Amino acid sequence: MAIDLRSDTVTKPTEEMKRAMVEAEVGDDVYGEDPTVNRLEKLAAEILGKEDALFVTSGTQGNQVAVLTHCVNGDEVILEEDSHIFNYEGGAVAALAGVQTRTLASDRGTMAPDAVARAIRGVNIHNARTRLICMENTHNRAGGAVISPEQMEAVYKVATSKGVGVHLDGARLFNAAVALKREITDFTRYACTVQVCLSKGLSAPIGSVLAGSREFIQEARWWRKKLGGGMRQAGYMAAPGILALTQMVDRLEEDHQLAALLAEGLRQLSFEVKPVETNIVLVHTERAGMNALDFLSRLAEKGVLAVDFDENVVRFTTHRHISEQDIRTALQAIEAILHA
Amino acid sequence: MAIDLRSDTVTKPTEEMKRAMVEAEVGDDVYGEDPTVNRLEKLAAEILGKEDALFVTSGTQGNQVAVLTHCVNGDEVILEEDSHIFNYEGGAVAALAGVQTRTLASDRGTMAPDAVARAIRGVNIHNARTRLICMENTHNRAGGAVISPEQMEAVYKVATSKGVGVHLDGARLFNAAVALKREITDFTRYACTVQVCLSKGLSAPIGSVLAGSREFIQEARWWRKKLGGGMRQAGYMAAPGILALTQMVDRLEEDHQLAALLAEGLRQLSFEVKPVETNIVLVHTERAGMNALDFLSRLAEKGVLAVDFDENVVRFTTHRHISEQDIRTALQAIEAILHA
Amino acid sequence: MAIDLRSDTVTKPTEEMKRAMVEAEVGDDVYGEDPTVNRLEKLAAEILGKEDALFVTSGTQGNQVAVLTHCVNGDEVILEEDSHIFNYEGGAVAALAGVQTRTLASDRGTMAPDAVARAIRGVNIHNARTRLICMENTHNRAGGAVISPEQMEAVYKVATSKGVGVHLDGARLFNAAVALKREITDFTRYACTVQVCLSKGLSAPIGSVLAGSREFIQEARWWRKKLGGGMRQAGYMAAPGILALTQMVDRLEEDHQLAALLAEGLRQLSFEVKPVETNIVLVHTERAGMNALDFLSRLAEKGVLAVDFDENVVRFTTHRHISEQDIRTALQAIEAILHA
Amino acid sequence: MAIDLRSDTVTKPTEEMKRAMVEAEVGDDVYGEDPTVNRLEKLAAEILGKEDALFVTSGTQGNQVAVLTHCVNGDEVILEEDSHIFNYEGGAVAALAGVQTRTLASDRGTMAPDAVARAIRGVNIHNARTRLICMENTHNRAGGAVISPEQMEAVYKVATSKGVGVHLDGARLFNAAVALKREITDFTRYACTVQVCLSKGLSAPIGSVLAGSREFIQEARWWRKKLGGGMRQAGYMAAPGILALTQMVDRLEEDHQLAALLAEGLRQLSFEVKPVETNIVLVHTERAGMNALDFLSRLAEKGVLAVDFDENVVRFTTHRHISEQDIRTALQAIEAILHA
Repeated sequence: MAIDLRSDTVTKPTEEMKRAMVEAEVGDDVYGEDPTVNRLEKLAAEILGKEDALFVTSGTQGNQVAVLTHCVNGDEVILEEDSHIFNYEGGAVAALAGVQTRTLASDRGTMAPDAVARAIRGVNIHNARTRLICMENTHNRAGGAVISPEQMEAVYKVATSKGVGVHLDGARLFNAAVALKREITDFTRYACTVQVCLSKGLSAPIGSVLAGSREFIQEARWWRKKLGGGMRQAGYMAAPGILALTQMVDRLEEDHQLAALLAEGLRQLSFEVKPVETNIVLVHTERAGMNALDFLSRLAEKGVLAVDFDENVVRFTTHRHISEQDIRTALQAIEAILHA
Repeated sequence: MAIDLRSDTVTKPTEEMKRAMVEAEVGDDVYGEDPTVNRLEKLAAEILGKEDALFVTSGTQGNQVAVLTHCVNGDEVILEEDSHIFNYEGGAVAALAGVQTRTLASDRGTMAPDAVARAIRGVNIHNARTRLICMENTHNRAGGAVISPEQMEAVYKVATSKGVGVHLDGARLFNAAVALKREITDFTRYACTVQVCLSKGLSAPIGSVLAGSREFIQEARWWRKKLGGGMRQAGYMAAPGILALTQMVDRLEEDHQLAALLAEGLRQLSFEVKPVETNIVLVHTERAGMNALDFLSRLAEKGVLAVDFDENVVRFTTHRHISEQDIRTALQAIEAILHA
Repeated sequence: MAIDLRSDTVTKPTEEMKRAMVEAEVGDDVYGEDPTVNRLEKLAAEILGKEDALFVTSGTQGNQVAVLTHCVNGDEVILEEDSHIFNYEGGAVAALAGVQTRTLASDRGTMAPDAVARAIRGVNIHNARTRLICMENTHNRAGGAVISPEQMEAVYKVATSKGVGVHLDGARLFNAAVALKREITDFTRYACTVQVCLSKGLSAPIGSVLAGSREFIQEARWWRKKLGGGMRQAGYMAAPGILALTQMVDRLEEDHQLAALLAEGLRQLSFEVKPVETNIVLVHTERAGMNALDFLSRLAEKGVLAVDFDENVVRFTTHRHISEQDIRTALQAIEAILHA
Repeated sequence: MAIDLRSDTVTKPTEEMKRAMVEAEVGDDVYGEDPTVNRLEKLAAEILGKEDALFVTSGTQGNQVAVLTHCVNGDEVILEEDSHIFNYEGGAVAALAGVQTRTLASDRGTMAPDAVARAIRGVNIHNARTRLICMENTHNRAGGAVISPEQMEAVYKVATSKGVGVHLDGARLFNAAVALKREITDFTRYACTVQVCLSKGLSAPIGSVLAGSREFIQEARWWRKKLGGGMRQAGYMAAPGILALTQMVDRLEEDHQLAALLAEGLRQLSFEVKPVETNIVLVHTERAGMNALDFLSRLAEKGVLAVDFDENVVRFTTHRHISEQDIRTALQAIEAILHA
C-alpha cells in the first residue's frame, strides 16, 4: 500500500462511522423527514454558532449554494486570487450564478482589509454591484495557512460597514481552530455564512455543511434543489457526519504534528519548505534538481504519493491514515531520491 | 405507522443494500478511484446500452447535468408542459444553463411528433436555437403513463433528422419497461442520453445515473463538478445502487399490481380514476365532495398519506413498503370518508 | 418600387423628423447630459403615466431590460405562447436573465385571468419563483389583436394580488389605443412597466422607450448599460422619437383603415382572413392553392411584399408608406395569382 | 462654456457628419437592407483587415457581443485587471455570458506573455475552460498607453498556440496606430476579433464596430439581437461612422499633441504626471495638497472639467473640441489652484 499524502480527502470513515451509517434512522429528506439529517443540521448550526444549517454533498456545493443565495446575477464577489472557489470550482460562480469574480492578492491567504475596502465598488451604472466577500480558512494554496479571528474580523468589519456580505469557505476550518487553540465560533462570528467539510481530516465519506441565518438557509434550500443536491434517505451520509463533528475534531492535532515532522525532515534535507501551520506541507523541488512532476513520479515509484501545486512545488497532506512511521518512510524515500 | 402512499421516494434500502453499503470498497471518486462507483457506472452503461455513465446525487442533478452538457446558453429545449424538468426542478434549466424552455401539450405525456417538428425553430437571429428535446418516461404528472418505444422512436427521428439531441428523463424508466415487458434498451436507443433513478421503486437510498456517449459523459463530469456533485467516498452510496439495478427491477411488477388494485377499488367506490399503467394512481376527489387538500387531511387522520396533484386530484404511489393489506386498509379509509 | 407590406418597421422618418434629428441639441447621455434624450424620457413618462422612462435602442432591448430589472436568476415569467418576447428575442429571457419562460395559450393574445392565476406557482423549493407576467398589446402573432383595458385589468389584478409584477410589451400599444379610442393610460395603468416602440407606425428610425417607477428605471439603467445600450450623443435618435410620440399617433387610424380595406378585398376574393383590429392582416393561403412561401414569391414577382407567419398564413402590415392605391394594386396582384 | 476634458466621448459630430446623417439612404437593418449600415460594415471590415464587421451601439455592446460569441457559459476569459471590460461594463461578462473573469496585472496595460501562458488553465474538471484573452489598446486606465504590435503578437502567439481566442478592445485603437505611426492592421492581425469606437476621438455621435471572420460575425448577429442591438433605420447613425473612419483618424494626432502640451505644463508646475502616449493625461493631485475630488471641484469652479481615476489621480482627455488655448487656460486654472 502506498503512503498516500495527496490529500486528506482520501480518508475513509472509522468503523464507528460505518456502524452509524448502517444503523441510521432515515426518511425522505426532500420532505424534511430524515431525522439523522435534521440532527446533523441542528448540531452543525449549534457548533458553528449559526441559526440553521444545510447538509450538502460537497464543499463546492456548499460554496456555490452560498454564492447563489447571497448574490443575484450582475453582482460581484471579491475573493483571494488563489482561493478554491475561484480556481477549483470550474468557474461556477460565473457559470451558474452570473456573478463576476474580483480577485485580490494576499499574504498567505489573508487579504488586506484596505485592499478589500478599495475593491468594493461604488454604486454606479458602470460597476458590477459588490455583494459578497469570500475568505478561505485554512487556505489550501497558501499551504494550509490559518487566518486568525482578528484578521477575519478586520475584513468582516470592512465588508459589513459597506453592506457587503461575508462567506467563509471553511472546508478545513477546524484545522484552523485546532492550530490556534481557539473556539470555532471565534472564526465563524466574522462570517455571515460558513461552509465546513465533514470529509477531509474529519473522515466522513461524503458531505459538507453550510450554516447561516434561518432565512438564508431557507433560501439556500431552493438553490441546493436546483443543483440536484436534494437527496432522499440522506441520513446514511449524515450519520458519519455527526461523528465527524463530535469525535474527530481534536484528532486534527495529530495531523498537524505529522506535517510539522515532515517539514522538519525536509528542511534537514535542505529543501525549501513553506511555513507549515496545519496539515499541509508545500515544498520546492529545486533542491532535488527536478520539477514537481518528475519528483512526484520518483516518489510514486517508492510508494509515496503527493500532488503538484506549481511547476516546482509539491503538496503533501497529512491525515488519519498517516502514521509517524509513514512520515519517516516518506522522508527516507525523498532522501534516496536526492542521492540517486 | 402510516400507510405512506405519497411517493416511491420514501423507500428505504433492503438489508442486503445496507450490508453492501457498509462493506463497500471505496476510494476518492473525484480522483476516479472509487471502485464501487466505477463498477456502478460501468454496469449502468451496459444495462442502458450506452458507452458510459455517471453517478449523480439525484434525478434533478442528472437531468440538469444533461441539459448543461447538451446545450449552451442561448439554446432552447423542448419539453412536455407537465414534465418534471420544467415543473419540479426550480427553473434550473434557465437559471443554471441559460436555456429557454419551450413546452408542448401532450397525450398522457407523449408529445406528438409533428408538434415537436413544428416546435423546432429555424436558424434565424430572431430565434433561440433548438438544441434538445426531453421526454419523461414514465410520465409522473400524466399518472405514471408509459411512452412506448415506438412513440419514443417517432420523436427521436424528428429530432435527430434536424440535428437536435434527445434526453430521456427516465427517473421511473424501469417501471415503463416492466409494464410493457420490453427491454430497457428498447427505450434508451431512442435517446442520446438517459437519466434513471436508483431510489424510488428500486429502493436505493440516494442517487441516479446519467448515461450517454463516452465523450458526453466526460463533459458531463465538468458540469457535475460545478454543481457540487463530485463526491469523495461515494461508493457507500453506489453500492446499494448496484443492487437496485441488478435485483430490484423485477419487483416493480408488484407495485404495478397494487396500483391496479387501488384503482379498481376506487372505481368501485365511484371515483373518477385516471388510467393506471404503472405504480401511480391519480384520482379526482369530487366524488368525496371535497377538494384534494381536504381529502388528504381526512385520509391522514385515518393513517393514509398521499399528495395533491391539482386542486381536485390526489396522487397515490405504490412501492416496496406497501402491501396488499395496506391497499385494502387505504380503501376502507376512503370508503369511511365517503360515508362520514 | 415594391409595395412593402412586410412590416411597419420599414417606415422611414418624416422630413420634419430628419430636420429635428440634425438640429437636435445633444450631449453625452451616459453622463445624463443629452437634453434631447432627457426631454424624450420625460415626455414618454408623462404620456405613459409613469414616473420615469428610459430610451432604448429597440423593443427587444426594452423588453429584456424590463425582464432583467423585474427578475433575478431563478425566477419565472409567464407569457403568452405566441408572444414576441418568447419567440422573437432569441431566447434572451433565459440566456441573459436566467429566467424560465412559462407560456400560456390565449384567445387572440389575451390570456385568461384564471389560467394566469393557476400558472403562478406556490412558494416551494421545487418551483421556480413566479416574478413577472408579460402581456403584448397589440398582439402581433394574433394578428394585431387588441387587449382591452378591462382584459388587462383582470390579469393585472390576479398578478398584483399575488405579488407578481406585470410588464407590457406595447411595441404597438398606440395602435391599440387608437383602435379602441381609449387613452394610452387606460392601458398602462394595468402594467408596472411598459415598453413602446417609436419606430413602426410612429415612424421614428430607431428606438423604444421603457417606462416605470423612478426606482425601477434607475435600476434599468444598470441593465441597459450591461447590454451596451448606453449611448453617447443619442439625442440625434431621440429627437425623431419626440415627434413620433407627439405627432404620429393619430395617423395610425389611417393604417387601420387600409388594413380593413385589404381584409375586405381578400374576403371578397374568398380568402379566409383573421379578424382585423389594427394594422395587421393575417390571411390563409389555401384559397390560392399554395403555401405561404409560394404565395409570397408569386406576390413578390408582382411587386408586393409580405411575410409568412405559418406554413399557410401570410401577414400584411400597413404603415405610413402605404396608400389606398397600394392596397388596390396589391389586391389586383393577388387576384391575378388566383387566376393564373 | 466649460473646457470639458472629462472624456473624448463628449465629442459632437462635424457638420459634414450631420449632413451625411440626414442624407443617409436607409432601410430596415434587421432585414439587412440598410445600405448605409452595409457600407459601414464593409468599410470597417476592410480597414480592420477582417472578413466582416457588425455595427453596434456602443463599445460595451461590441465587447460583450464578442465575449458572448467567443465563449459559452462555463468558460473563462483572461483580461487585464484595470481593463474596461472588467471594470466598466457592469460585470456583464459573468451576468450575461456566464463567463468567469481572470485578471492579470500588467505593465501599463500590457500583460506579460508568460503570465498569460501560466493563466491559461489545463483541461481538468476542477478548472473553468480558458477560451479567450482580451487586450485593450490604447489602455484607458493605464493612461492611454499603447500596446505595440510586437507586444500584441507575443500574447497572440501564446493564446493561439493553446487554442485560445483573442479579442481586442480597440475603443481607441486608432489612437495607438497614430501614436506609433503604424498601420491599423499591424495591430488587428494579432486579434481574432476587434471592437473600435466610432465616437470618442473620431467624433461620430454613436456606435462602434465589431470585426472578425465571416462566420464569427454571423454568430455575433444572434447575440446583438438578444442584447437589443438590432435596429431599424440605423443608417442615420452609420453615416457619420463612415466619415469617422475615413476622415477623422489623422486628426487624432492633434489630440495627442495637446495632451503632451498639458502634461508638460503640469510637470512644470511640479505635478507627478504618468507617461503620456496618446490623448489621456493622468496626474497625481498630491502636489496640489488635496485629493482628486477636491481638486476636480476647484477646477470646475474655474470652468475646467476632468474626472477622478483614483483617490489622488485625475484624468484629462483631449479631443476635437479642445484647442491649444483651452489647454493654456486649463493650466492657468491649475496654477491658480496651487497658489490659492
